[in-house]
Amino acid sequence: MVLVHPRNPLNIGAAARAMANFGFEQLRLVEPYRVASDEARSAVHAEELLLAAREFATVGEAVADCHVVCGTTALGPRELNVPLYDLEEAAIRIRKARGRVAILFGSEKFGLSNDDMSHCHWLVRIPAIPAHRSMNLGQAVAVTLYSVSRRREHAVVEASSKADAGSNERIVQLLLEALGESGYLKPPSDASQTLKTRRLIQRMGLSAKDAEVVQGMLRQVLWKLHKM
Amino acid sequence: MVLVHPRNPLNIGAAARAMANFGFEQLRLVEPYRVASDEARSAVHAEELLLAAREFATVGEAVADCHVVCGTTALGPRELNVPLYDLEEAAIRIRKARGRVAILFGSEKFGLSNDDMSHCHWLVRIPAIPAHRSMNLGQAVAVTLYSVSRRREHAVVEASSKADAGSNERIVQLLLEALGESGYLKPPSDASQTLKTRRLIQRMGLSAKDAEVVQGMLRQVLWKLHKM
Repeated sequence: MVLVHPRNPLNIGAAARAMANFGFEQLRLVEPYRVASDEARSAVHAEELLLAAREFATVGEAVADCHVVCGTTALGPRELNVPLYDLEEAAIRIRKARGRVAILFGSEKFGLSNDDMSHCHWLVRIPAIPAHRSMNLGQAVAVTLYSVSRRREHAVVEASSKADAGSNERIVQLLLEALGESGYLKPPSDASQTLKTRRLIQRMGLSAKDAEVVQGMLRQVLWKLHKM
Repeated sequence: MVLVHPRNPLNIGAAARAMANFGFEQLRLVEPYRVASDEARSAVHAEELLLAAREFATVGEAVADCHVVCGTTALGPRELNVPLYDLEEAAIRIRKARGRVAILFGSEKFGLSNDDMSHCHWLVRIPAIPAHRSMNLGQAVAVTLYSVSRRREHAVVEASSKADAGSNERIVQLLLEALGESGYLKPPSDASQTLKTRRLIQRMGLSAKDAEVVQGMLRQVLWKLHKM
């Protein structure tokens, strides 16, 4: 479970407590407000989990070793071309997923940014009353983890044949470089191009093996383009 | 929803917010700590609900007009001879119930007393890890109300339409040409390389739109490679 920019220590504590309740172990924080993560260390019922929480500077680093990355949102899919599932269906997908799954929650105030979402293979929404879509962070975490934990027979995560997020990201960077070299993109490549390219690669759902092949192809093409 | 002896105003506010999220209207409080219910009045996102909350001196009075009364517990049924259901089944029972249903939550510290439970037709338990059964009150309310409110809805956004075989094959041919130009493949490209590349592209399962984008990228890279 990944909390992106959490502000309120009570919410970090509440998220950790829900994780303990429903048997989830790895808490990751992306750029938490320092005071928030320090105060959360004292939250009851989930001390071990909080002590073991790892902090990352970016979403990309936090999910690098994950094979499925899903983001939570109270809204629609905005302009991103990402599938959006209601929690019920998302929970089934998460339970069935092979490999490590990251579930991203945005900050209390703003949720996940478009950039955060560009790391997500798909989004999940907790069905709520349209006029009151905005949920408390700790409660959203609890509802999500409860739903995912139901009838989770296979707690043991199988090794995945899918490429992890770090591997896909290397492809994104190589591809951006090749597209820049060839004039498809005008350098400097702007943020929206990076997002679009990342989404494109994610939608391919490459296996670990295919990802290696694609990286090899891109490196060779780049080598040739550089030699010009 | 009935909160019995709630102590923490944040929890009353959180409970009210979850009720707003999932479309529940009547909040009843049994002997709340005075300061708790006063402070909760300022909770965000659920002001109306909190203002309309009614207070009662006893559980009996709070549930007097209800047809089904169910109590929440983190434990087993103690000595009470009351059926105990996991939330999943309890939610179905609540949705099917005729008449007004009361869902009771006990205080943060002690849960429902035996006396409180004696008003219940049955009890509901949220399945949690045995070593960490104790849930935060606001989170327990959110999980319960989510479960009761949910309807089986499925994917909101369908994956976009897939590229046809002709479109994929154009990508294969462009890619083979680029790989030949860059020296990744030794020309003349043999049949087995073509098959491998075609399978690779097929496994990507590109959408029609993504296929167009990839073709455009490859054409540009090829144009640059040819210009050398």
